[in-house]
Amino acid sequence: MTCLQNFTELNIPEIDRQLTEQVQSINAPEILKEAMNYSLAAGGKRVRPLFLLAVLDFLQVKHSEASTVGAAIEMVHTYSLIHDDLPSMDNDDYRRGKLTNHKVYGDALAILAGDGLLTYSFGVLSRLKTVPAEDKLELIQLMSEAAGAEGMVGGQVLDIESERKIISVEELETIHINKTGALLSFSILAGAILASADASTRKALQDFGFHIGLAFQIQDDILDIEGTTESLGKTAGKDVASEKNTYPALLTLDGAKIKRDWHYNQSIESLRHISSEPGLLDELAAYIVNRSK
Amino acid sequence: MTCLQNFTELNIPEIDRQLTEQVQSINAPEILKEAMNYSLAAGGKRVRPLFLLAVLDFLQVKHSEASTVGAAIEMVHTYSLIHDDLPSMDNDDYRRGKLTNHKVYGDALAILAGDGLLTYSFGVLSRLKTVPAEDKLELIQLMSEAAGAEGMVGGQVLDIESERKIISVEELETIHINKTGALLSFSILAGAILASADASTRKALQDFGFHIGLAFQIQDDILDIEGTTESLGKTAGKDVASEKNTYPALLTLDGAKIKRDWHYNQSIESLRHISSEPGLLDELAAYIVNRSK
Repeated sequence: MTCLQNFTELNIPEIDRQLTEQVQSINAPEILKEAMNYSLAAGGKRVRPLFLLAVLDFLQVKHSEASTVGAAIEMVHTYSLIHDDLPSMDNDDYRRGKLTNHKVYGDALAILAGDGLLTYSFGVLSRLKTVPAEDKLELIQLMSEAAGAEGMVGGQVLDIESERKIISVEELETIHINKTGALLSFSILAGAILASADASTRKALQDFGFHIGLAFQIQDDILDIEGTTESLGKTAGKDVASEKNTYPALLTLDGAKIKRDWHYNQSIESLRHISSEPGLLDELAAYIVNRSK
Repeated sequence: MTCLQNFTELNIPEIDRQLTEQVQSINAPEILKEAMNYSLAAGGKRVRPLFLLAVLDFLQVKHSEASTVGAAIEMVHTYSLIHDDLPSMDNDDYRRGKLTNHKVYGDALAILAGDGLLTYSFGVLSRLKTVPAEDKLELIQLMSEAAGAEGMVGGQVLDIESERKIISVEELETIHINKTGALLSFSILAGAILASADASTRKALQDFGFHIGLAFQIQDDILDIEGTTESLGKTAGKDVASEKNTYPALLTLDGAKIKRDWHYNQSIESLRHISSEPGLLDELAAYIVNRSK
């Protein structure tokens, strides 16, 4: 078993447990909790919490509430998937191999389950027990920026606006830096904050987050072409069918792979500014660009 | 001019200015900022920020960032209206006398404008300059509870679940305590937090918030019967037409007025535990139960 396999097999159950327990503890209507939990429990790669934990591992810092922060970020990610899948947005029926939230609970409850997850995630950060108040406030401020109009929500708007238009690679990059990159970068930075990392380490991790976020997204686009619906758990080939702006569409498949590898190499180079010794974080980055689902 | 008129004419423009400036300062796609601003600028009574400011007035405390906190709460309130008006929820075409957000910008952008406002409001609280870190965290935690699954979002779910069912007065009360009461109570408690009020003052203000919140909602139900579409800025008689569970429907119109007045009197009694002298907060409470729109 590789070091990364050991790490994920140890930590994913802990993140899942946190998610289930957090939602179970909410004093709310059962049907709402069920809808919130449905999408959280649908699995997924838990990429954002894993990056947070891998950053702490890389910086050789243990933090008892790291998986709690990771769970809060996963709630924000899950809310965004629930809202993105709605009929008025991407209109997706399947996600992570299961029916999407609105296909099971209806549009109204899906919107509210997303709203509930987003709102709750800020409460989770505010209640952390072992994180200094100023650090909690920084986490909340940065998560608000990464998830909101300046980040993920803004990126989704740009994505919708670009539909049925031909855009440049730069415009596509702006979409992804916001839509997926901002929250991924935040989870990496959150690890640095919990580790009380110094400014130069934070800067290097921000560079790492920027590049690995783009490599992650390019690989997503490549998998839409090379993957199968079965392996992906969502409809493969949908980007091509809907004439979506993707890296392969703008750069050819080979061009997209070159760009992905370039961003991957840049991300690894950033890590070498922190430590000459590759670690788990290197392995996680490599997994991200080589994954088949 | 009454004291209350003077107070609202002084403060509403300041709250409006804060809302406009805050959204203008966001680094986000213009169309998203336009959609966010559209519903904020549609006016409304600004009840929640006014309550916050009136609490500070009542406690004779000045706070330079009170209207900023009020604006953050108004953003949360506005997001909830945008989502509630969606076709999959209440399907309303008019709000505050103007077309609802999704009628102008489409469902996708309306959902995202709501998401953006909610997410941004937590950022506003995290960035307050003159509030101690622990108080900011308490504001964030309480706003997360009041706005989320344990409060407003949960209340909206209960409301949807109760459609086309006959429910008890107690069940109706539970819906409103969560759907509208929780955020209104939070704005009152936020005033107490900014004023560093002691525990007994906070308790009295919480009781005040509980009762004035219910009186506010009962008056809303009464206005749906007694008001006109023109004066309300939203479709009058809609509750009756849709056989919605309301106080007048369950208690008769006169019974609803008795209940409203009882809660109003209880709210005023709570204030007398803080000060024997009635103030602006008393006037605002009286306005709430006597308003015609």
